[in-house]
Amino acid sequence: MIKTIVLNNRPEGKPTVSNFEFVTEDKQLTINEGEILLEAAYVSVDPYLRGRMSDAKSYIPSFELNKPVQSGVIAKVIASKNNNFNQGDFVSGMLNWQTQQVSNGEGLLKIDGTKAPLSTYLGILGMTGLTAYLGLNEIGKPKAGETIVVSGAAGAVGSVVGQIAKILGLTVIGIAGTDEKIEMLKTKFGFDAGINYNTSKNITADIKKAAPNGVDIYFDNVGGPISDAVLFNINRFARLIICGAISVYNNTELPKSISVQPFLVKNSALMQGFIVSNYAEKFPEAMKQISTWLAEEKLTYTETVVNGFDNIPTAFIDLFEGKNKGKMIVKI
Amino acid sequence: MIKTIVLNNRPEGKPTVSNFEFVTEDKQLTINEGEILLEAAYVSVDPYLRGRMSDAKSYIPSFELNKPVQSGVIAKVIASKNNNFNQGDFVSGMLNWQTQQVSNGEGLLKIDGTKAPLSTYLGILGMTGLTAYLGLNEIGKPKAGETIVVSGAAGAVGSVVGQIAKILGLTVIGIAGTDEKIEMLKTKFGFDAGINYNTSKNITADIKKAAPNGVDIYFDNVGGPISDAVLFNINRFARLIICGAISVYNNTELPKSISVQPFLVKNSALMQGFIVSNYAEKFPEAMKQISTWLAEEKLTYTETVVNGFDNIPTAFIDLFEGKNKGKMIVKI
Repeated sequence: MIKTIVLNNRPEGKPTVSNFEFVTEDKQLTINEGEILLEAAYVSVDPYLRGRMSDAKSYIPSFELNKPVQSGVIAKVIASKNNNFNQGDFVSGMLNWQTQQVSNGEGLLKIDGTKAPLSTYLGILGMTGLTAYLGLNEIGKPKAGETIVVSGAAGAVGSVVGQIAKILGLTVIGIAGTDEKIEMLKTKFGFDAGINYNTSKNITADIKKAAPNGVDIYFDNVGGPISDAVLFNINRFARLIICGAISVYNNTELPKSISVQPFLVKNSALMQGFIVSNYAEKFPEAMKQISTWLAEEKLTYTETVVNGFDNIPTAFIDLFEGKNKGKMIVKI
Repeated sequence: MIKTIVLNNRPEGKPTVSNFEFVTEDKQLTINEGEILLEAAYVSVDPYLRGRMSDAKSYIPSFELNKPVQSGVIAKVIASKNNNFNQGDFVSGMLNWQTQQVSNGEGLLKIDGTKAPLSTYLGILGMTGLTAYLGLNEIGKPKAGETIVVSGAAGAVGSVVGQIAKILGLTVIGIAGTDEKIEMLKTKFGFDAGINYNTSKNITADIKKAAPNGVDIYFDNVGGPISDAVLFNINRFARLIICGAISVYNNTELPKSISVQPFLVKNSALMQGFIVSNYAEKFPEAMKQISTWLAEEKLTYTETVVNGFDNIPTAFIDLFEGKNKGKMIVKI
């Protein structure tokens, strides 16, 4: 029996479980020469998938209605007629939300579950780690002694960005939505300071207090009013890495913010949209550095693991409530 | 008799003549060894001076109350005890709004009125030309075949940006506020298309019509709703040069715009604040290229010349009504 999650309809505003439909087929998948049969082991849910559920123009194509939803998936090869893969191998790649599926192996990466837990290949050893490392370095160009603010700091990418920035000698300030997360930023991830945007009476002033010398780099995962507050604190030649805008992804009206242009002119500041796939040629170098830091125990990570294929949509929706700490993963 | 214009009080919203005070002193200026006596010939009025009238933190210090206002000035050396300058020389530099003043020569550039009209050293052969050339090239990185939109296109900087972009093989669309200006963009400056933001019913749609392949570069002099409209038309890897935001300089409340972050992420786009003084090491190269193009008649320019020292404040204020075509200059 094969279960598939397809896009039932496009969300208006916040996604709901009714946007997804579970299709169950009582059949046996077969493979042809060159193909492999995969069984899903771990499924990644990520904020950017919200964009693919819409039909607006974007950097990756929209999901089609009544077609399987896709994301980063770790799967086990349960049968192979492809010389590059053996039964029992684990692979990582963009795959369907499907308990079993057939692939020709294209775009799949073999991963080694003995070196690191399988799920980390969706997180710190996968797109999460690459996004944090490359976004920070390629756009942020961090220098020791500078100050960085990270929004969505307790999330998958944010918690890695903060740790890398610490390794590189920066003062690191994280913004997150609960006191528990702020505590985790400081004790587990070594951030210098944390601001709870749900209890702060004045985020702009709190950033100023935490960053008396101003903000040189802003790693932005959230957009909206939190990002507005950072603007008032940026230094000359500041770099603002726009990695995501989870706070406005579900807006049904076009979100408004304070105009960034006067801040950018006054400070000769840079704001750049970051998409990790544009930096594919740097993946090997980045992965090598991340693995080294992991082995040296300079980097750590947190996962929020939800169990069961049927809970994929809920896990995804919970991202927008900030229910995850670190990387949100569904174990099948 | 020496006349000086000092900052009387700081404007709230749009500047008015009452922000300035004329001080008349019946005295003779004298010079010491190493000094020169200058008589103002041409005074530049520029939108960025609005920022210096406020006391908000910015990239250049605020004007002090009851002290002379400054801007780019062309002056004649009427007496010299400095070996680098002779009586009769003309110089360009940041000088007081003052009929006569004493200088030690620091920061002044000798200019040759026989090679080009003196006033052009405030415009296309001065900061205006440098801003256009360096902003476009250093941040915009234009490639032949691309499409650029220029706002404030009939202004001093905008009209030069459009012409340089044409020389470099781009499709050039200008946005300005009167039909007469749009006509000038197309006939005098060779723009491919122009949009009158005062009569357009839908600027976003009009940009789309003029730029069916999307916008690769946006040279932004204005900010506000015009810049919002451009965002809907940007291409992947677009570069947005934020050179000014004249449409919001006089706002008394913080201006709001649509949130740029989602557009930047979706398109891996870059937005960067540009201030010409950060690129001083490139001035000679830029000036050489601009002079060459001028000599080859590939570049032309327009000036709006106002007569009389007493009219400096009015000429400045008129910038915010778009009363200038090209560079606004006051002839003393």
